[in-house]
Amino acid sequence: VPRELRGMTEDALLPLLRERGLGTTGEVIGSRTLRTTGIAESLLQDRVTQANVAAAQEGVSLAYLPGVDGVDLRLTAQGDSATVADRLGRMATALRSAVGESIYGEDNDDLAAVLLAACRERGLKVAVAESCTGGLLGARLTAIPGASDVFVGGVIAYANGVKQHELGVRERTLVEHGAVSGEVVGEMAAGARKKFGVDLALAITGIAGPSGGTAEKPVGLVWIAAAYGERLETRRIQSWGDRQEVRYRAAQAAMELARRLLST
Amino acid sequence: VPRELRGMTEDALLPLLRERGLGTTGEVIGSRTLRTTGIAESLLQDRVTQANVAAAQEGVSLAYLPGVDGVDLRLTAQGDSATVADRLGRMATALRSAVGESIYGEDNDDLAAVLLAACRERGLKVAVAESCTGGLLGARLTAIPGASDVFVGGVIAYANGVKQHELGVRERTLVEHGAVSGEVVGEMAAGARKKFGVDLALAITGIAGPSGGTAEKPVGLVWIAAAYGERLETRRIQSWGDRQEVRYRAAQAAMELARRLLST
Repeated sequence: VPRELRGMTEDALLPLLRERGLGTTGEVIGSRTLRTTGIAESLLQDRVTQANVAAAQEGVSLAYLPGVDGVDLRLTAQGDSATVADRLGRMATALRSAVGESIYGEDNDDLAAVLLAACRERGLKVAVAESCTGGLLGARLTAIPGASDVFVGGVIAYANGVKQHELGVRERTLVEHGAVSGEVVGEMAAGARKKFGVDLALAITGIAGPSGGTAEKPVGLVWIAAAYGERLETRRIQSWGDRQEVRYRAAQAAMELARRLLST
Repeated sequence: VPRELRGMTEDALLPLLRERGLGTTGEVIGSRTLRTTGIAESLLQDRVTQANVAAAQEGVSLAYLPGVDGVDLRLTAQGDSATVADRLGRMATALRSAVGESIYGEDNDDLAAVLLAACRERGLKVAVAESCTGGLLGARLTAIPGASDVFVGGVIAYANGVKQHELGVRERTLVEHGAVSGEVVGEMAAGARKKFGVDLALAITGIAGPSGGTAEKPVGLVWIAAAYGERLETRRIQSWGDRQEVRYRAAQAAMELARRLLST
């Protein structure tokens, strides 16, 4: 519990560290977190290893922290404050060279806030079209104070009839490819962009489970799309975890797809 | 953390209780939770006191546990298992007589699951229209496995233009009463019911904060509505807490309004 940890840190940990000499001698422990998503921990480690960050890593410990948002890279260094800042900065720069395209923020950054800020900067309006997430993507975006100058609205298209009537998904596409397909998610995103007259529309359709999966389309299969102007990107994800995790990861992945689309 | 608590209970608490004689003498501690929402803890206590449940309370301790879902009533009794079951049953019956209309479930029941079950039983289809919650109500309903046989979809009507074009809210209503008003939330619910051709539609509009409040319409003011057939109920709530709590309580209140509407 963050609030309790904060209390324990202030009341117990920091006094203990000071007692043991930290602080009194001008020594500090500093840390910085680079937040990644859409890349597996093992692949992230490979890329970091290949990038040969050893020189930059002097005096910095690096931890890989996987969670439902993605994998956080936590850098920690100890020494006088100038040295710590310098070492953390050097290592962060090296990691950005290695895996920068997967880094969406630092420390407590929320991807929803990062995406909204990127849209605000470019003067873009955003809408969503959600099937399996049922409103979760819209809820994440609107959890950020001030979302209303970017986020316009969305359609929760849980039933196939809603996908057709509200988003213009063609019956033929649904019949030929199924509701969980790249074709349908693409039509959902394009339909939402047109319906709401926005610059950027995100769409999600998938099988959140626990039932509803087949051999060909197992539980955890999710298709996401981002329509940005005339560009349309779709991605297939095979997610894991329970229903809530599948849905949460789907919303995260859709926002990341949009973030990368805006930055390229 | 539930998983940790379970581990601690099994590894430490239960052995300790057995050591002290519980279990070996056939004694058990049993508990039952009645979940209420939409009623303040103080009012709940007044009603329970007035209902004079003292006779039924013999051997049962009663705790009021307020949380973001509402106030849970936890009954605990100790003795041989038949006595415990009997005592908890008698007290639960007394509490249901006193405050039954506020009780939506027991133990781990989720109001979203309770509402979906009530709709399923009656063969009803459901849709939502959300402004300040931005999809959170739809997300809560679709978090329940099997929601798709009841839940059809919804409109996230964050911008006023979406309220007008997608839900048929009249411009005049918006201008005269403002987006956060009983009139607008009623038109949102009626519009969603019609648009999706469902039996029951829920709507929410409010000021989640931290900014956007005025003296007349402060942060935390939320209007909710449920349109069920030709019936339309609206309620004004003055919520508290941060943006996430205001939004969560708004979704909870809208579901409770619908649950009560179905049960009367």
